[in-house]
Amino acid sequence: MAATGERGVSRRTALGGAAAGVAGVAAAKISSASGAELIAAKKRKVDVVVVGGGLAGLSAARAIRKAGRSVVVLEARDRVGGRTENAKLNKTEVVEIGGQWVGPGQTHVLDMIDDLGLETFDTYVDGKSLWYGNGTLSEYTGIIPPVSSGAVLVEILNALADINAKAAEVPVNEPWNAPHATEWDSITLSTYLDDLGLSDEARGVIELGITSVFAVEPRDTSLLFFVLYVAMAGGDFNNLINTTGGAQEKRIVGGSQAISLKMAKQLGKSVELNKPVRSVRTKGGRVDVKAGSATWSAKRVIVTAPPALVGGIQFDPPLPAARMQYDQRVPMGTVIKTLSVYDAPFWRDSGLNGMTTSDTGPVKLTYDNSPPDGSPGVLLGFIEGQDARDLLAASESARRDAVTECLVRYFGSEAETRMTRYIEKSWAADPWSRGCYGGVCPPGAIVAYPGIVRKPAGRIHWAGTETATEWGGYMSGAIQSGQRAAAEVLAKL
Amino acid sequence: MAATGERGVSRRTALGGAAAGVAGVAAAKISSASGAELIAAKKRKVDVVVVGGGLAGLSAARAIRKAGRSVVVLEARDRVGGRTENAKLNKTEVVEIGGQWVGPGQTHVLDMIDDLGLETFDTYVDGKSLWYGNGTLSEYTGIIPPVSSGAVLVEILNALADINAKAAEVPVNEPWNAPHATEWDSITLSTYLDDLGLSDEARGVIELGITSVFAVEPRDTSLLFFVLYVAMAGGDFNNLINTTGGAQEKRIVGGSQAISLKMAKQLGKSVELNKPVRSVRTKGGRVDVKAGSATWSAKRVIVTAPPALVGGIQFDPPLPAARMQYDQRVPMGTVIKTLSVYDAPFWRDSGLNGMTTSDTGPVKLTYDNSPPDGSPGVLLGFIEGQDARDLLAASESARRDAVTECLVRYFGSEAETRMTRYIEKSWAADPWSRGCYGGVCPPGAIVAYPGIVRKPAGRIHWAGTETATEWGGYMSGAIQSGQRAAAEVLAKL
Repeated sequence: MAATGERGVSRRTALGGAAAGVAGVAAAKISSASGAELIAAKKRKVDVVVVGGGLAGLSAARAIRKAGRSVVVLEARDRVGGRTENAKLNKTEVVEIGGQWVGPGQTHVLDMIDDLGLETFDTYVDGKSLWYGNGTLSEYTGIIPPVSSGAVLVEILNALADINAKAAEVPVNEPWNAPHATEWDSITLSTYLDDLGLSDEARGVIELGITSVFAVEPRDTSLLFFVLYVAMAGGDFNNLINTTGGAQEKRIVGGSQAISLKMAKQLGKSVELNKPVRSVRTKGGRVDVKAGSATWSAKRVIVTAPPALVGGIQFDPPLPAARMQYDQRVPMGTVIKTLSVYDAPFWRDSGLNGMTTSDTGPVKLTYDNSPPDGSPGVLLGFIEGQDARDLLAASESARRDAVTECLVRYFGSEAETRMTRYIEKSWAADPWSRGCYGGVCPPGAIVAYPGIVRKPAGRIHWAGTETATEWGGYMSGAIQSGQRAAAEVLAKL
Repeated sequence: MAATGERGVSRRTALGGAAAGVAGVAAAKISSASGAELIAAKKRKVDVVVVGGGLAGLSAARAIRKAGRSVVVLEARDRVGGRTENAKLNKTEVVEIGGQWVGPGQTHVLDMIDDLGLETFDTYVDGKSLWYGNGTLSEYTGIIPPVSSGAVLVEILNALADINAKAAEVPVNEPWNAPHATEWDSITLSTYLDDLGLSDEARGVIELGITSVFAVEPRDTSLLFFVLYVAMAGGDFNNLINTTGGAQEKRIVGGSQAISLKMAKQLGKSVELNKPVRSVRTKGGRVDVKAGSATWSAKRVIVTAPPALVGGIQFDPPLPAARMQYDQRVPMGTVIKTLSVYDAPFWRDSGLNGMTTSDTGPVKLTYDNSPPDGSPGVLLGFIEGQDARDLLAASESARRDAVTECLVRYFGSEAETRMTRYIEKSWAADPWSRGCYGGVCPPGAIVAYPGIVRKPAGRIHWAGTETATEWGGYMSGAIQSGQRAAAEVLAKL
């Protein structure tokens, strides 16, 4: 009986909390069943249920709340933030173990940061970058590692120009209608690079850039998806790979998860954690959304899960066939984000900015990821694409050893001797993300189901950075998608 | 109270039924909760739970039962058979609206048919086939439509020889270790055909064959997956596309679903319908499998859902990262199977066998699918790949009109005037299949996660035709996979 009493209390608490942001609480049928029977929990009424408490979901809820409508965000995890997540470095400092950067042109996230009163700071770039290629280490500045000849540089620049020219042909709202849509969606990015006839050296540099953006191999995605991505990022591949002037320009004081944490705080009890949505049932003009033993009844639902995870929700009636098929065709990339913590950012003393590009993994890309005041020192090492897949089943200590070996190769023995802590997150192992940075379309997926990516299925609307049309795959795209979905829903309420 | 009483009855019935094929019934904790609390249902103990009552699951259960172990098959639908399904034509005759053919070399399904005392009959092939190309209709015999010149025929034969030569290099148990695995998994099948430099005519014929096998476009799959498929089918692409001598040689008397129906009948109450498995929890040397409000406790579990549907089950602990990622990379093909029923197979009177290949859709492939005695007459029309995707959202009557227009084009006005009934199934719209014929690997999927396709995750084993090594994608592959998984499990019990 004690257990029953406790559950009763927690249920009341949850209801009391939800009431703050919920239009009304409707009692659902309570059957007069015996002790052996399950009783339906109370059904809570809201205008909109948002599935997922990442940047897309919270942005959507914020917009809905602002319009005076009631909303609840149901988040599967015990935290908000989705693919952004802070880890504590010490009592005051955090480091990001998920998405972290913002840059020029990412108006949706930059505006949100302003709205929330958050601040940004520059990614540390003072000094030289390192290039590790063919077994030797060299220093450089700028975006392209030091190549062996001007001819190779020209190859790379020509390829970038060709990529950007193709991106200019792709309408971000309807990439399936690009003039060469079918042609570009019929080949892998690997084939595109083959056809450019690049030298091994030029190709290696370009592939490094591609894998750093998608966390997949060039064989895993179509040319059309790639140039769509460039188009969504302002039409220049450099925007995706640049630090200063690009998508890695700035970080958020307090860590990128602070955006979600602050939105969630403002939304208060309208954000429900530990509520993995298992079923969404449309009937008689309303939608019942079930998470655990609780049910919410809404007029409209926004699902922010990436396509690859939508299959985990049972829809009744089932989703349209094209939607069910599209969702099978946007697999998540593979990245293990590693953070090696040091007493101080010792590399800065040698005039290094902590950035490395390398032809030898598993860590082929590093950044200085220290807090704003440079204490403690943090080296961020990315393990991406096949390098990450090859280490998915490895132990954390085996991965730590592999990472440390790379860092010593780039920054010397201090990278091992001065390390005080190792933090990592393998996003593919997280069942609520199943990969990062985002969903990636293999050949055929975009042209097969025109328009489906954002097409509401009855009262169910779609958000999440995989549905963005600006900075898709990024935090900014997540926010843009959430605001777009909220506008769709508000127009129908 | 009446409702409660009824539920009590149905629960007892289910338990009583299960006991016939279940080792023991263990009472789970029943809390002393009030009427407002859910009570855990009794937990039923078995050696093995099989998730899915298609050919793979039933074959696995049959093997486990034969070894003297207890087993239950949990099937989400209200029927067994998975991607095989019979539709009634009249009181005595059925027609297949799912997978239907068997052919030489498919030993697993042929042996099963023998074991079960079922019979096969020849696909109707007497007479001429039709080819509709460039707006004109012509008759032909054999497997390759009448091409305009010997040169085109040579192109096609050379391509087939090249495909078969490549298939010979692929070890079916470990295609990721094929000598050219990465190279062939880096390009689409479309790119492979591009590189062959075929004439439009030759390419058109080959693409027809490809789409008829996979129900996807050549851009949707990798060369490696394609040649693996050929390798699993005995190493000759002709085996896949042939009627006589190939995978479409024979049908099963009573329809292909009869195989599953008969297996299920023998398994009796060990097969539970309407039991969509939602969670699989491993703890303390046992696995709890939950479907609806019922829970089974097993030593081992065999999951037969295709990879694209595994995400619909919540695993605790979560599946290994590589498994979760692989399952995102095997989307299902797209096919709408249509059956136009006639008072008689009128085309036979004109010396036609009912087979058509066409360059103009949506129906580009037809067969005579009449019952063994030829009454009623049935024309089977396949809508596959992009043709199917383009019609996923169309109404049944719009699709019927489109199909009839094709059949009239091939068989004359009688195809419309003598039609008595139209039957169809869009497999992509079925939430328990989400596509057919099977899962198809886009570039990168096979080499990214070597071995994962069949690697048990703790006590969870994998079956389903997508995990077969012989005749993968076919009924025979499903059975082979179920028997292989059963052997794995039995070795561990």
